[in-house]
Amino acid sequence: MSLRSDADFIMEAALEAAMPDTAVEKALKGRCFGNGRILVVAVGKAAWQMAKTAVDLMGDRISGGIVITKYHHAKGALPPLEIYEAGHPVPDMNSVKATTRAIAMVRGLQPDDTVLLLISGGGSALFEKPLLPLPELQKVTSELLACGADIVSMNVIRKRFSAVKGGKFAQLCAPASVYAIVLSDIIGDPLDMIASGPAYPDSSTCQDAEKIIRRFRIQLSPEAAKRLQEETPKSLERVETVVTGSVTELVAAGKAAAEKRGYKAVVLTSRLDCEAREAGRFLAAIAREYAGRGEKLAFLAGGETVVHLKGTGKGGRNQEMALAAAEGLRGIRNAAIFSFGSDGTDGPTDAAGGYVDGMTADRLAEAGISIPQVLEENDAYHALRKANGLIMTGPTGTNVNDLSVLLID
Amino acid sequence: MSLRSDADFIMEAALEAAMPDTAVEKALKGRCFGNGRILVVAVGKAAWQMAKTAVDLMGDRISGGIVITKYHHAKGALPPLEIYEAGHPVPDMNSVKATTRAIAMVRGLQPDDTVLLLISGGGSALFEKPLLPLPELQKVTSELLACGADIVSMNVIRKRFSAVKGGKFAQLCAPASVYAIVLSDIIGDPLDMIASGPAYPDSSTCQDAEKIIRRFRIQLSPEAAKRLQEETPKSLERVETVVTGSVTELVAAGKAAAEKRGYKAVVLTSRLDCEAREAGRFLAAIAREYAGRGEKLAFLAGGETVVHLKGTGKGGRNQEMALAAAEGLRGIRNAAIFSFGSDGTDGPTDAAGGYVDGMTADRLAEAGISIPQVLEENDAYHALRKANGLIMTGPTGTNVNDLSVLLID
Repeated sequence: MSLRSDADFIMEAALEAAMPDTAVEKALKGRCFGNGRILVVAVGKAAWQMAKTAVDLMGDRISGGIVITKYHHAKGALPPLEIYEAGHPVPDMNSVKATTRAIAMVRGLQPDDTVLLLISGGGSALFEKPLLPLPELQKVTSELLACGADIVSMNVIRKRFSAVKGGKFAQLCAPASVYAIVLSDIIGDPLDMIASGPAYPDSSTCQDAEKIIRRFRIQLSPEAAKRLQEETPKSLERVETVVTGSVTELVAAGKAAAEKRGYKAVVLTSRLDCEAREAGRFLAAIAREYAGRGEKLAFLAGGETVVHLKGTGKGGRNQEMALAAAEGLRGIRNAAIFSFGSDGTDGPTDAAGGYVDGMTADRLAEAGISIPQVLEENDAYHALRKANGLIMTGPTGTNVNDLSVLLID
Repeated sequence: MSLRSDADFIMEAALEAAMPDTAVEKALKGRCFGNGRILVVAVGKAAWQMAKTAVDLMGDRISGGIVITKYHHAKGALPPLEIYEAGHPVPDMNSVKATTRAIAMVRGLQPDDTVLLLISGGGSALFEKPLLPLPELQKVTSELLACGADIVSMNVIRKRFSAVKGGKFAQLCAPASVYAIVLSDIIGDPLDMIASGPAYPDSSTCQDAEKIIRRFRIQLSPEAAKRLQEETPKSLERVETVVTGSVTELVAAGKAAAEKRGYKAVVLTSRLDCEAREAGRFLAAIAREYAGRGEKLAFLAGGETVVHLKGTGKGGRNQEMALAAAEGLRGIRNAAIFSFGSDGTDGPTDAAGGYVDGMTADRLAEAGISIPQVLEENDAYHALRKANGLIMTGPTGTNVNDLSVLLID
């Protein structure tokens, strides 16, 4: 029981640190913006929350701005900001309308003005103004996908056909300065990928773009071919970017919380990306090494594992990781492994993740449940429910990947 | 280059510590055996090497004994010991003949006599005297296998049909004392499993055995049914067992060697048992967390990963782990991951394992080799050969599982 209560404590502290509010507050703390105007441009799934914190903290210093978020994600008026909801994951006409409005707002700013750019996941779809007619953009995108182009190649092309991606929005803000606060939903915080990097210099070149188009034999209209030749910004002056909410914070706060509860805590990684069940087995192998030594130890791994679906059961990557770990923990006293998605939704389930300990495997066996078979069917949800191992948080309002923790008491 | 030379240094030191000679020497150091006779009984694939060290160290104190090893594994006479070679992995008539001789040797020993029992992997087949006619034993064994009985259930039955397994050999040595030195080839050093535990009390009961026979509906002859009722020893007096050669030593010596080269070394586990390629990805995720911090770090994991074969290529678990890690290390300077089998043979190849660093992935891409495709084909050997990433040691003379190491410089 004490392990489960420690787990809950660590989870809560980690989530708290990864909330958009906390992230924005941290990034604005002690920050001065000169005497010019301050415009807020908030884009992404957490845009409303981030913008609200900025408005709460800076009040009248904000002279205007815009919030562009997903449908049903705005929670009320935030004067003086204008609020737009738009399509995600596929951009729609409202994405374009809102983005066009944002571009209009930053036109004519002065050198002592500041654009406070609040970026969160989902921004790629929500913040978009294509430089091509939408049907052609959609055709090129789906052809690239069909040819097996990877996400990096896709983005090289997309940036060239967009008015705001690949650093172009920051360019439109000039001569004002831009302060970008980023809540990262991608492992490793690749600033050119999060929301397609509206304020981040693009490292890809026109030659790279042409190579991709040729390689996948994509037919372009003369207009698109021309756009392909327009170079993206390679450096951006007066733009500062800070990543405050990310899986790194999630892991660091989890570590601090574990230490508060008396664990010696080791961060293994904040970039975990292997198969979920095997990560669970790896953590269980660490447990078998250190359990029973009389030392309170915590091992933390952040990131986003993957699941290669074979079955038709119900579950998510965090639940699969926990369930797979249960076998390796079998019979070990005072060790637990838990894993959860910071958004509170693990796969298509109402659980955030899973919690298992040394008794879980036996408890399931008694209930006639075979862990290997459950994994084969990708049905971790029902097995964990039987073992009291579901972690339920409800939607958390943030999205900075997952945290997995091994506790040894 | 310096990383590779550190890797070689660590490998050599780890192997040295896991050699049968080192293990036996360590276990005999400062040990007194009273004034009685000392008999050596050495069984397993490393029996000759272990016995040789005992003879070298104790000379005339040894009054006799026997070496039972695999065909072509004896390297000459070791007076006063008798030497037998026998069948492995399937026991044959020479296994039975040699074991019968060993039993005869320990008959009539006195309380101040000692049996020095040197155990290594392969002992289950080499050291066997069945209590049933061989054909019936083979029939029961293959029926159990066909029904999907696990290794634990198999052993519960096997111990009851053997004159030496499950602690029975130690019982035959009484009233002499037994000092067993174990070179472990099984993760976690389960003493009842290594060579089927000839000197280790059996925790399974007659009821357990009956349950298994009933569950899998095995038909037994009246003789076999009677044997099933004979209880195995639950405790053994005057038997002392020490595990000196095991993956734990391999990992500990690797850690010490890394520290000697200036790395801060962390043992993750000595019980790794997950899918090889995913273990590689997990290690690479740790590398991405810690690389570039200016700290010399080593993370060590011992154990035995698994490979689920899909392709028809050439490779082994250590080579697959290394190759899978190469993708995650791509572009990271001053980090390397290597993995090797302590016996010098990784899968059906002449390599012991694989070594990769931050340049491996690009080097392979330039050679037109796609890592995901190679993994799909289980063909790590040829890819690593192209990238200068094969570790070649030749047969090492020991067998204590694998060591995988991440080095960050």
